[in-house]
Amino acid sequence: MTARPQNVHQARLLRLLRDEGPRSRAELGDVVHLSRSKLAVELDRLVALGLVEAAGLAASRGGRRSGIVRLSPALRFVAFDIGATSIDVAVTNGELEVLGHVSEPCEVRAGATVVLDRALDLLGKLRDEGLIPQEVHGTGIGVPGPVSFRDGMPVAPPIMPGWDRFPVREAIGQELGCPVLVDNDVNIMALGELHAGPARSVNDFLLVKIGTGIGCGIVVDGAIYRGVSGSAGDIGHIRVADDGPVCACGNTGCLEAYFGGAALARDAAAEARLGRSARLAEILAATGEITALDVAAAAAAGDPVAVRLIREGGRHVGQVLAGLVSFFNPGLVIIAGGVAGLGHTLLAEIRSVVYRRSLPLATGNLPIVLSELAGAAGVIGGARLISDHVFATA
Amino acid sequence: MTARPQNVHQARLLRLLRDEGPRSRAELGDVVHLSRSKLAVELDRLVALGLVEAAGLAASRGGRRSGIVRLSPALRFVAFDIGATSIDVAVTNGELEVLGHVSEPCEVRAGATVVLDRALDLLGKLRDEGLIPQEVHGTGIGVPGPVSFRDGMPVAPPIMPGWDRFPVREAIGQELGCPVLVDNDVNIMALGELHAGPARSVNDFLLVKIGTGIGCGIVVDGAIYRGVSGSAGDIGHIRVADDGPVCACGNTGCLEAYFGGAALARDAAAEARLGRSARLAEILAATGEITALDVAAAAAAGDPVAVRLIREGGRHVGQVLAGLVSFFNPGLVIIAGGVAGLGHTLLAEIRSVVYRRSLPLATGNLPIVLSELAGAAGVIGGARLISDHVFATA
Repeated sequence: MTARPQNVHQARLLRLLRDEGPRSRAELGDVVHLSRSKLAVELDRLVALGLVEAAGLAASRGGRRSGIVRLSPALRFVAFDIGATSIDVAVTNGELEVLGHVSEPCEVRAGATVVLDRALDLLGKLRDEGLIPQEVHGTGIGVPGPVSFRDGMPVAPPIMPGWDRFPVREAIGQELGCPVLVDNDVNIMALGELHAGPARSVNDFLLVKIGTGIGCGIVVDGAIYRGVSGSAGDIGHIRVADDGPVCACGNTGCLEAYFGGAALARDAAAEARLGRSARLAEILAATGEITALDVAAAAAAGDPVAVRLIREGGRHVGQVLAGLVSFFNPGLVIIAGGVAGLGHTLLAEIRSVVYRRSLPLATGNLPIVLSELAGAAGVIGGARLISDHVFATA
Repeated sequence: MTARPQNVHQARLLRLLRDEGPRSRAELGDVVHLSRSKLAVELDRLVALGLVEAAGLAASRGGRRSGIVRLSPALRFVAFDIGATSIDVAVTNGELEVLGHVSEPCEVRAGATVVLDRALDLLGKLRDEGLIPQEVHGTGIGVPGPVSFRDGMPVAPPIMPGWDRFPVREAIGQELGCPVLVDNDVNIMALGELHAGPARSVNDFLLVKIGTGIGCGIVVDGAIYRGVSGSAGDIGHIRVADDGPVCACGNTGCLEAYFGGAALARDAAAEARLGRSARLAEILAATGEITALDVAAAAAAGDPVAVRLIREGGRHVGQVLAGLVSFFNPGLVIIAGGVAGLGHTLLAEIRSVVYRRSLPLATGNLPIVLSELAGAAGVIGGARLISDHVFATA
């Protein structure tokens, strides 16, 4: 049974120690506005619960030296970041530092049982390395599709056959004997950026993930905004033009029909077949297919067709994002995901369109940046999601 | 000096009495989870502050009859709803019932001093009618442009010459001797719908105002979302197409370049000059201009050109709104503003596009409705804005 704080003061202290690291009692007292004796009572209770421990004495601030406290080093959170074609499993301590992280290719369409068993196997490997000395205190899971956050299960996810209404939270909770929360993979990436990325000091921001498809995590006042049915941020099917390519959703001209890993691979293969790029044609002949990564490599090597495809993609993302920036007026936009690896060519094009098309008042102080966390955003965000839950009153 | 609640319990009681009307002490105790004696203490203090008063005895619930309390009938909030070409001034009681409401044409471009003086004159008329027995407890003001909510002043408002950084809050606060808050006119309309319209039971919704221009109020978790620089919801310049009409902002293909009162009048006049509508040509010849209201009247009388212009406008609003619905996943969309008076032809077209183009998960339970408050939304919202402030701890 995972210990939980008993009141809001304890919850606040746990989150402070998570986000700021070990602190002296004097420093904690300054922040939480509790009397010395009340603070001592709450900290003693957290020690008794096994969540906090003493860690020596702080330097003197003039009087008696204050005792330092920290989160128990035995605290462990687990994160599963399940993507369309990969799975990441990580273990963190209470401060959400990643102690171990394994990643391997895995097709989400293999179905819930296969994929979740594989995640548990990977977790077993981390356990065998001695990374989990006692219990797991909570697990956060991201999946590549719409989720009923309340029910802890995917709902009608388009690229996850066999997962519809599969009780992910219940299944993993029973297996690991700890609290579990399940969310959309883009939302947990946004939480990862909120915890450890450039968004740490920003309350309202957008994370745009460009992978096989395109999605958006929305943070309002430091928390994920999910919308009334949990589908907020699903921007891949926003209309770019009336007469664009046909999309898998049945409409024409959706953003994902123009760009994203799948559209980029499709367009690059078409250019190769038309003989417009010797480099792309070579890759197609050698491997029988072209991936978004191949296009990135070709662009980095100076292939003009590859560069043009990336710039056109960036322009379409920018057109949609410009509207969302006018609407939402965020303090920061982060571009992330596999295709974001296309890097600064893509970023430059997105910036150019947003800064030209959004309202000056909304872009005056708006940074648009690439994620610096790369593959770690999802697992850090998964750990953050469940730690927010465990470090709150029940 | 306006009295304010001294703690969160008192604030909660005041908002309950505002939103639910007179209640017995027994009923209030059930809701706020205070002991009988603690509740009595807090209510006594609110009576002493002049904010609450006793109002007889409730029907028996089995035992002793419980005393009914209500907000003091002397409480008065004032709202100024300043539009591009009109000004509305209203006085409400503590429950935000409109006791008096005057509206008259007024050009906002006449400048801050002229317009605010006119608002104070209109308030004087309501005072002369005896509607303000004692003091004004707070004033909420909406203006048709971007506002620094923190500073209480318009910032670089495009259609309000002479208003940039004019200290509206300070000026009116000194004049009326009460707390004042200033916000964008669309935001106060959204608050009005939250208080008295179909949004009363919805926490996350959008209010789209189609007037001379087009704007959007965003409500997240029962509160206005303003964005990091206060410009959230400014959707009039979201791109509909690359090759559309040139907009006043300098870009091409913005929503406002396609639709809104100004664009509709422009297009109707063009059709009249081309001889495509005898009815519109008649209006143009008779008055020298065509307004959005003229187009509405022509459409209601069956003029096919007028109907087509309204449907095309609805289609463009729907295209932008479809993207915002996918992004924001609201629980309700309300269409309001002068041009919303075009009614069900416009609504049908907007609905048709949004239900076809947004994600099914986002539209499954999404009502799209016309505002039922008409001109009252702004003043009710202005009163709500300032009452939320006055009925909170300082």
